[in-house]
Amino acid sequence: MTVMPRPREGAARSGNGALQICCRDVDKKRDFEIDASVKVTSNPADILEDDEIDMVLELLSGVELAKTVVLSSIRAGKHVVTANKALLASHMAEIEEAMADHPQVGLGYEAAVAGGIPIIRSLQTSFPGDRVTRVAGILNGTTNFMLSSMSATGESFSDELAKAQALGYAEADPTADVDGWDALAKLVILIRLCFGVRLTLADIPPVGIREVTAEDFEYAGLLESTIKLVGSAHVDSALSASLCPFLVPKDSVVGSVHGVNNLVSIVTDNLGELSMQGPGAGRFATANSVVSDAVSIARGRVGLAEAFPVALTTELAVDMDLHSRFYVRLVVRDDKGILRVVGEVAEGHGLSLYSVLQTPIKTRERVAFVVTTDATRWSQVRAFAADIHKQPWSLEEPFSMPFLEP
Amino acid sequence: MTVMPRPREGAARSGNGALQICCRDVDKKRDFEIDASVKVTSNPADILEDDEIDMVLELLSGVELAKTVVLSSIRAGKHVVTANKALLASHMAEIEEAMADHPQVGLGYEAAVAGGIPIIRSLQTSFPGDRVTRVAGILNGTTNFMLSSMSATGESFSDELAKAQALGYAEADPTADVDGWDALAKLVILIRLCFGVRLTLADIPPVGIREVTAEDFEYAGLLESTIKLVGSAHVDSALSASLCPFLVPKDSVVGSVHGVNNLVSIVTDNLGELSMQGPGAGRFATANSVVSDAVSIARGRVGLAEAFPVALTTELAVDMDLHSRFYVRLVVRDDKGILRVVGEVAEGHGLSLYSVLQTPIKTRERVAFVVTTDATRWSQVRAFAADIHKQPWSLEEPFSMPFLEP
Repeated sequence: MTVMPRPREGAARSGNGALQICCRDVDKKRDFEIDASVKVTSNPADILEDDEIDMVLELLSGVELAKTVVLSSIRAGKHVVTANKALLASHMAEIEEAMADHPQVGLGYEAAVAGGIPIIRSLQTSFPGDRVTRVAGILNGTTNFMLSSMSATGESFSDELAKAQALGYAEADPTADVDGWDALAKLVILIRLCFGVRLTLADIPPVGIREVTAEDFEYAGLLESTIKLVGSAHVDSALSASLCPFLVPKDSVVGSVHGVNNLVSIVTDNLGELSMQGPGAGRFATANSVVSDAVSIARGRVGLAEAFPVALTTELAVDMDLHSRFYVRLVVRDDKGILRVVGEVAEGHGLSLYSVLQTPIKTRERVAFVVTTDATRWSQVRAFAADIHKQPWSLEEPFSMPFLEP
Repeated sequence: MTVMPRPREGAARSGNGALQICCRDVDKKRDFEIDASVKVTSNPADILEDDEIDMVLELLSGVELAKTVVLSSIRAGKHVVTANKALLASHMAEIEEAMADHPQVGLGYEAAVAGGIPIIRSLQTSFPGDRVTRVAGILNGTTNFMLSSMSATGESFSDELAKAQALGYAEADPTADVDGWDALAKLVILIRLCFGVRLTLADIPPVGIREVTAEDFEYAGLLESTIKLVGSAHVDSALSASLCPFLVPKDSVVGSVHGVNNLVSIVTDNLGELSMQGPGAGRFATANSVVSDAVSIARGRVGLAEAFPVALTTELAVDMDLHSRFYVRLVVRDDKGILRVVGEVAEGHGLSLYSVLQTPIKTRERVAFVVTTDATRWSQVRAFAADIHKQPWSLEEPFSMPFLEP
């Protein structure tokens, strides 16, 4: 947590002009100098109760202390800049209520979504006469690194995870990244910002990348596609959202995002598609977003309507049962009549199969093949997959993922 | 030219709340309704001399009348939003001087560069603690459409031009697009904004796409590259800028921009590379940028420093002799010893050749082959090309273009 008193000459409060830093360990060795005029404390109250302080930069990990710091700051009339996506995604209601009670407070959260990419400020300022109808993105650099590398090397998920951990891209406990929770928090924030709908992490069950195999990249290649972990939401008659691996055309904008980069793509009535690609994390990219937020607030971008220009709506129905074409990978012990049964089970679920893909069989004991479907509901695909897995020759629950539609 | 009085309650001036529109032909049939409360005139003075009017949206084509309108407006204390790249690129000095004299006037020019892509506002607001070191982009949709199509179809420049004209993407007189002048004006604006250096169109001789042939796309393919008309500028010890066809890796961000889209990519100290891709033109994309500028100004983004956060500098040397690896296409009548002479001429110019590319010869009467160079100066490449063209077997002045370095 860092604070900036008097962001600008002439701001509402006077102060001594000094910065304060609050951190867990005051004495920790750091690779940068802290100016002698800066007071360093480990007690948040030193900052929260200091009336001279106008702005709090909340850069904690974890949610509970961060929540106290952010809400106390807003309620004390202090501007807040936060990089904490988990906090925003899980406590948006309280934060917005506190903002509503303190209309002169500014809230900056550019660093919380897609790191250094200025997508939040663009969405806040560039579409006052427009309407966003879709937002989709590669919102987690670790998993994009892993998927890019799987695509290039043909190696397995576990090999790529070990590689990402060795490079410092993945944590020892990789759950937040590989199971999609980190990206999902960012998607929840984007949905609030773009559509005025406040969802929680529980509303969109994420599908991570643990089940994506080297075989899937082979089959994706046959479809001139690759696989990306994409958070996507769009509105027509209802709001639909998903966070899962998608089949993505190789030569598309999303398909050409490599390594740890992030991308956010929006579709609006006036523009069609606009996309931004850049670093999703990293100390300097994050710091840049935090500093630009602080400067924006100091220049007067305060209030709830600046932070969230699209007012909260309860009118929009929410439909989480994705409608799309799907890729379904079946893993079976080779046997007679499998295709006939697959066709019958699909028909029983009202599912129209579009194509069957089969690379050369290496061993009859374990055969992976793929069916693709015409546009349908994911619930139907999952019911189909569950029934397939009841067959004696099914070795694994079939793995399904949607195509990213243009 | 459109005007908006009283953009916001509480703005400096009071007014009657009515919009005025000034256009060349008041009676022209339009495909939209103009509200009866809106006064439509063909006399700019009706707007410029109306003290009730706070903001002028200048959407003229051409430079001279636009210059009068913009300068008169600023000097009368009216905010200006303009989509006029040619005006800004050619009269930046007078506009900035007028702004300096009227610190409460806002200037918006988002629509002047890359249409609907909010690159101007991002550059104005997202990097207060950062430094842009490179800006590069596909800044003209017409030529990108033509080059994308040449790449896909193998057809010639003149076939593609006819196609673009038939589709309404290219004008009957295509000079502004295909010779690079439209893109160059945008590059000049970006250079002022990013680096604080004010260049004119005469400072960067553009190379258009007229000389790019189907053969060049064949050779680009051998280099896993494609060809894009790119405006690029970067600073290290000096400012270097160019507007010309570049060899671009096919799987790079720039290489994957297809059709009429634009892209702007920047490199900063904190972020590394950030790129934005979207519609470069079109009535709704342009209108969206104009409206968001008007709203930003109404919310208080006024003054020269908001429009151009990087102060003008005269410290930075300007070096227009591009340093890069180059592609040089030679067209010859087949003869003995050509490669030996090419090698000798290169050596005489201190030019290190990296590779020679040759697709199968169809007729000995006209053979196109390519040499690529190690990093060197374009002036050396051009001197080499001029000397090559003095040889009896040279049929055309060799065509050179740089590689877009990452």
